[in-house]
Amino acid sequence: MTIWFATGNLHKREELAAILKGRRIQIPSQGGIPFEPEETGATFLENALIKARVLYRRVLAPVIADDSGLCVDALGGRPGIFSARYGSEGTKSLDAGERNALLLRELEFTSHRSARFVCAMVLLLHEDRFFVVQETLEGEIIRESRGSGGFGYDPILYLPDKGCTVAELKEEEKNRISHRGKAGRVIGEILASMPDRP
Amino acid sequence: MTIWFATGNLHKREELAAILKGRRIQIPSQGGIPFEPEETGATFLENALIKARVLYRRVLAPVIADDSGLCVDALGGRPGIFSARYGSEGTKSLDAGERNALLLRELEFTSHRSARFVCAMVLLLHEDRFFVVQETLEGEIIRESRGSGGFGYDPILYLPDKGCTVAELKEEEKNRISHRGKAGRVIGEILASMPDRP
Repeated sequence: MTIWFATGNLHKREELAAILKGRRIQIPSQGGIPFEPEETGATFLENALIKARVLYRRVLAPVIADDSGLCVDALGGRPGIFSARYGSEGTKSLDAGERNALLLRELEFTSHRSARFVCAMVLLLHEDRFFVVQETLEGEIIRESRGSGGFGYDPILYLPDKGCTVAELKEEEKNRISHRGKAGRVIGEILASMPDRP
Repeated sequence: MTIWFATGNLHKREELAAILKGRRIQIPSQGGIPFEPEETGATFLENALIKARVLYRRVLAPVIADDSGLCVDALGGRPGIFSARYGSEGTKSLDAGERNALLLRELEFTSHRSARFVCAMVLLLHEDRFFVVQETLEGEIIRESRGSGGFGYDPILYLPDKGCTVAELKEEEKNRISHRGKAGRVIGEILASMPDRP
């Protein structure tokens, strides 16, 4: 059975397909479905639920949606839900490298480096029936970008346990420990263990 | 390991202990902890998260919280999150029998009887790490209360598949199919399947 994934990001689709081994994952653009939800929520959870419901109303079938970002303690949790739009002004938006450089400049004079990736992932089976997992990956903002794997803020989140940044992990290792990997596996377990569920 | 359950309701504690067989469930009053969260959320999910966070900040240990209610389609989803306070004015609140009678009067002249119990249950492991399950029990509002089991609106929700109201089910059968039973078992599975979790 196909599960719809409420994203326009093919990279995220590949990542989820790898986490939910063997499940067919379809994204709106593959079904010719316009998908431009207004992410007006105040939290990752609210935005993930908004995306899931917008797509559910189009497909009337089980939907997975996520919302993720980087929360930096010295910035009071910023950029948080605005991670993808961080540093953007009007129609001018920054690319990932520019966002990372901006964040490093913001933190230049502080030794308070703790930060985490957060992912809220929703499996919506019906308007009133859903599951949510919110998971984290704890780390520290490094002084200079390192690594070429992953995407987004991966090159600037350093993992003391691993001795490297997220962008320096192999993809399999990243999926094993990442916020999105951990959340996705719980959703996969819920899908697998429920006989009446897709 | 003990799990805290964010409720003041001993009956709910017994129900959850039966669903999560073998786990030690403790409620705030048993630990001498004052617990009067302001349920200011707009949804079951928001209220469940509020309760979980309020207790988490007191105990700094894993917490389960739920918020449940009855949603009647002919009333646009009412009483919903106000189920426990339905019909109350100022400090005067109705007991369950009075609430049920009021609801039956509100629906006296409509044949549109579909309704459901909804339960949002949260397992909060840490400020940013949590799981949520929202489950439903679909039925119809009966014309006259029936049955003496359960509590709350159980005597007026009729289950066509079962040929009886929720209050006429044996406790074990109710826990097997109920909104709270289904949600609780998913939380139990999540607890059981995660080696690094409590």
